[in-house]
Amino acid sequence: MYTLAMDTSNQAMSVAVMHDTTLMAETTINHKKTHSEQLLPTIKTLLAAAELRPQQLDRIVVADGPGSYTGIRIAVTTAKTLAYTLQKTLVGVSSLAVLAAGVTGTKALIVPVMDARRQNVFAGGYQWIDDTLTNVIADAHLPLTQLLKEVQVLKQPVIFVGADVVKFAPDIRATLGAQAGFADALSAYPQARRLAVLGQHAKPVSVFDFVPRYLRLTEAESTWLQTHHDEGHEPYVEKV
Amino acid sequence: MYTLAMDTSNQAMSVAVMHDTTLMAETTINHKKTHSEQLLPTIKTLLAAAELRPQQLDRIVVADGPGSYTGIRIAVTTAKTLAYTLQKTLVGVSSLAVLAAGVTGTKALIVPVMDARRQNVFAGGYQWIDDTLTNVIADAHLPLTQLLKEVQVLKQPVIFVGADVVKFAPDIRATLGAQAGFADALSAYPQARRLAVLGQHAKPVSVFDFVPRYLRLTEAESTWLQTHHDEGHEPYVEKV
Repeated sequence: MYTLAMDTSNQAMSVAVMHDTTLMAETTINHKKTHSEQLLPTIKTLLAAAELRPQQLDRIVVADGPGSYTGIRIAVTTAKTLAYTLQKTLVGVSSLAVLAAGVTGTKALIVPVMDARRQNVFAGGYQWIDDTLTNVIADAHLPLTQLLKEVQVLKQPVIFVGADVVKFAPDIRATLGAQAGFADALSAYPQARRLAVLGQHAKPVSVFDFVPRYLRLTEAESTWLQTHHDEGHEPYVEKV
Repeated sequence: MYTLAMDTSNQAMSVAVMHDTTLMAETTINHKKTHSEQLLPTIKTLLAAAELRPQQLDRIVVADGPGSYTGIRIAVTTAKTLAYTLQKTLVGVSSLAVLAAGVTGTKALIVPVMDARRQNVFAGGYQWIDDTLTNVIADAHLPLTQLLKEVQVLKQPVIFVGADVVKFAPDIRATLGAQAGFADALSAYPQARRLAVLGQHAKPVSVFDFVPRYLRLTEAESTWLQTHHDEGHEPYVEKV
């Protein structure tokens, strides 16, 4: 299976072309947030390096959030468009799972963290069980203090990963002490090769129904809901 | 420090641009051995992605072997030429150290392995000591059976890493049993981001005196020495 995988939900963008579980080509760019300018040229360069025509791809895999709204939408829109025009299967994978997958060779609980601002984070809990990365705590948008409390009661070793972890490290250490470990800094960027492999095992989704997992309301939605109580539906996500 | 790092000693080529220990851009291509065609365009693309002019680089870091003769020479020649023309410091790092550096979060002995054909390997022993990757068994060109014997007597956990490890896994398991572990397959490719960091801590070399660490004779040299015994010098490397 030839897979094209892309993640623009973090500050660092990562794109990979894989043949089954063998890496063919991967690029990671961590410089400003010019994902919208860099994604398509990067895809083109990597396909050329792998000597593949777009039509030879079997599957498009995209990190579908959480993360920055704009960031998520760049890859998701590109992936949907490619899957639709090339008539290939499309798979969405949690951006937090991609970060967790970069932490290997451990049985500890892996907690990927992305800054959601105002002392809130996007975070989840993952663990390698029988060589399969397994989600053991659902991805959520929550205050950092709540995350740390939830992890603390588990009383098991935890490895935090993500480019934003360094700024939360003092709080993490203050609450968790020796319970907390940290992935090495060079493993904290998303690796599209790992996204591709996660996506190869996931169930394809409909191109038309596919929506990102934002896990929180935009400011505009939040403001709208405060003044429009009779819209006839619940907020799509919980406000924290 | 802006660092450009490149490794073409393996089948997979990896190039990275780093600002100190922060990744700016990295590409890894594992498709045939067209490193000679792909290295310079990749460097150009990554510098553009990082919005750096070549002159802004502070240091060129190259994986200087062991590995394929042709492969090593492509990056070494490119790195020397860039360092000379741009007047930047040049550093060579063991290709085996680069592979070892991809295995993090462990206190075990890390043994990077590259196939040297005819049941011989290039291999060394590395360990993370105080967060610094330390060479504990010198890189060498030796029969696989000898490597396994040397590791066996250490009676400590060992993690093998490298794209060629999969083909040696049955022999490794037969000799070492539970003593041997294996890095996950997606960590088995060289990561130029790790080469860059290793090179930031290494001592620069003279562009003019710098030679790769081939660790074995070429066929041509070996044949020449068999028929020319009076050349007045020892072979540069030990024949195994």
